[in-house]
Amino acid sequence: MKKFKIISKDKDTQARCGILTTVHGEIQTPCFMPVGTQGTVKAISPKELEDCGAQIILSNTYHLLLRPGIEVIKKAGGLHSFISWQRPLLTDSGGYQIFSLALLRKVNDEGVEFQSHIDGSKHFLTPEEVIKIQNTFGSDIMMPLDECVHYPCSKDYAEVAMKRTLNWARRSKTAYRKNLATNHQLIFGIVQGSTYKDLRKECAKEIVDLDFDGYAIGGVSVGEPKELRYDITYLVAQNLPEDKPRYLMGVGLPQDLILAVEAGIDMFDCVVPTRYGRNGTAFTREGKLVVRNSPFINDFSSLDPDCNCYTCKNFTRAYLRHLFNSEEILGLRLVSLHNVYFFLELMCKIRKAISENRFLQLKREFLRCA
Amino acid sequence: MKKFKIISKDKDTQARCGILTTVHGEIQTPCFMPVGTQGTVKAISPKELEDCGAQIILSNTYHLLLRPGIEVIKKAGGLHSFISWQRPLLTDSGGYQIFSLALLRKVNDEGVEFQSHIDGSKHFLTPEEVIKIQNTFGSDIMMPLDECVHYPCSKDYAEVAMKRTLNWARRSKTAYRKNLATNHQLIFGIVQGSTYKDLRKECAKEIVDLDFDGYAIGGVSVGEPKELRYDITYLVAQNLPEDKPRYLMGVGLPQDLILAVEAGIDMFDCVVPTRYGRNGTAFTREGKLVVRNSPFINDFSSLDPDCNCYTCKNFTRAYLRHLFNSEEILGLRLVSLHNVYFFLELMCKIRKAISENRFLQLKREFLRCA
Repeated sequence: MKKFKIISKDKDTQARCGILTTVHGEIQTPCFMPVGTQGTVKAISPKELEDCGAQIILSNTYHLLLRPGIEVIKKAGGLHSFISWQRPLLTDSGGYQIFSLALLRKVNDEGVEFQSHIDGSKHFLTPEEVIKIQNTFGSDIMMPLDECVHYPCSKDYAEVAMKRTLNWARRSKTAYRKNLATNHQLIFGIVQGSTYKDLRKECAKEIVDLDFDGYAIGGVSVGEPKELRYDITYLVAQNLPEDKPRYLMGVGLPQDLILAVEAGIDMFDCVVPTRYGRNGTAFTREGKLVVRNSPFINDFSSLDPDCNCYTCKNFTRAYLRHLFNSEEILGLRLVSLHNVYFFLELMCKIRKAISENRFLQLKREFLRCA
Repeated sequence: MKKFKIISKDKDTQARCGILTTVHGEIQTPCFMPVGTQGTVKAISPKELEDCGAQIILSNTYHLLLRPGIEVIKKAGGLHSFISWQRPLLTDSGGYQIFSLALLRKVNDEGVEFQSHIDGSKHFLTPEEVIKIQNTFGSDIMMPLDECVHYPCSKDYAEVAMKRTLNWARRSKTAYRKNLATNHQLIFGIVQGSTYKDLRKECAKEIVDLDFDGYAIGGVSVGEPKELRYDITYLVAQNLPEDKPRYLMGVGLPQDLILAVEAGIDMFDCVVPTRYGRNGTAFTREGKLVVRNSPFINDFSSLDPDCNCYTCKNFTRAYLRHLFNSEEILGLRLVSLHNVYFFLELMCKIRKAISENRFLQLKREFLRCA
């Protein structure tokens, strides 16, 4: 059975709408995945995520491995059951976190050794182990262990890391195939190669030859200039097969999402809506709004008059400002919720615009405001 | 029209069920009021409070006066509108907070001068001003300014404070009557007198003569021994009229509520459910449970198997423990929510037991477990 079906394509751009099928349900793409790093999308309940229309969320293997540990999640009957989330779930491989958060990393072709950023405990992970962990989680979409380099990175090292990522992808696929119980889980390949176009092309070609259920672009949004990021995204997307979902990891702001959809990207994840929400910055149709700012003391309008989220339907800027000034948890809850809703609603609008062949019009309107 | 109607009385005790009518709806008593100090019940949304069955919440005049200030709430169209709460609302007078939180207090018969605990700003409040503020709030139930003494307190000073409280109650009632626009708001009198029975009796008699819509017992739970608190509660309740609601301010733990209902108390407020919730302590039928404790690492049962709250219907102790260990906001949200539900559900059970003439049976069962 085909797991990904394209249902419409924009006439002017690479943007497309699709449906990705997992055992926990269908996902309409392009989609945004709220991030539940430690098994919870920060400050938001599963019920609220459902009410916001979240189709799928992402959780971080690295964090869950350290806390609460694999055994707890295994005994709970998997990650869906542990965190009480019944819709699709993507888990990353931990690669990005190991190479950005963990301490004292030693990487070799076999795998990677690192120390926990929480308690300094030592861990050694191989690609096979990472697949096994995600089997235990029961994630709908698994990611293979990769080596993610930061920007800038020498071409020599970028190539070493890219080749290792390819080698690990091969071993991940083999480990995945061996375990028949995981057949209901999808597995995506990750394209690395830093900002070097030839490395990216080579990696894309080799990864596609391994035949994954979808393809992710890793190592973007790691400090490189925006223009370079767009270039790389376009280039890699063009070198991925039309009939598989494309996932741009860790991106981004609303305008980033629109530009990437234009390049043919289908899936996104980012901590931006919840991180900004906790800091009291709301995304609106008219741009970002810092609720603590003094002009809002007596502003009894909602964050975004066009928004239908719980926050905008019930609370004013003046009240949200008061909550943030008084350090009340409800404040960051409500702004986080609004932001997640805003991102998910934006993806709805993008899908609608693509299906009605007016994606460029939406892009123009949106970028004018943002 | 009678604002309070007793609908059943327990055959063995002073416990009774009633209905208190306000413009924002009826309140079934005995009732518990979750506390929204700064215009929000900490970490819980108004929607969740409604879903938990909260009939009325309490908010603190002192805190709202300092932040966001009266003008903002006035411009918002009142406190209900500002905080988006459509059910009944009781505001206290600020007396308790001025005498426990504020800095550099100077009290005289005219009123009380104090400095904000937030920014040191100076304020002077009179009984008339406090009524005016609560008129602006549009609270369903207002409280007059009182002087609350702590324990221990000399009899001489307790008498001074009690007499001042009486004098202020008289002025409050006069100010209340002058403003025809406030006729839809109820006003309660407060009985003070520390732990001195003769002062309490005298205060109760005088306050009742002023004819308020209900009567509160203030100055309890201020450090005195539990036995003394029960004695005072019983004594004052017996000296209050049968046909008016009785409100025990700032109390308490589940067992305190049961003992006070037995003494004929109808209304309670306390920060206990939310404060304990934020610290990861859950109230259950079997007693308190500290979710962070290690035995819960692999405990996949709910906090309280008999509970129907969102937390217990969806999440395990193991997951809640993980959330607290990982310092995730969802953890304190879910335990606060459970605790508020637990308190409100306890009041439901109390009302049912009274109406079925088996209050003492409920008391025995509950105190055995607690």
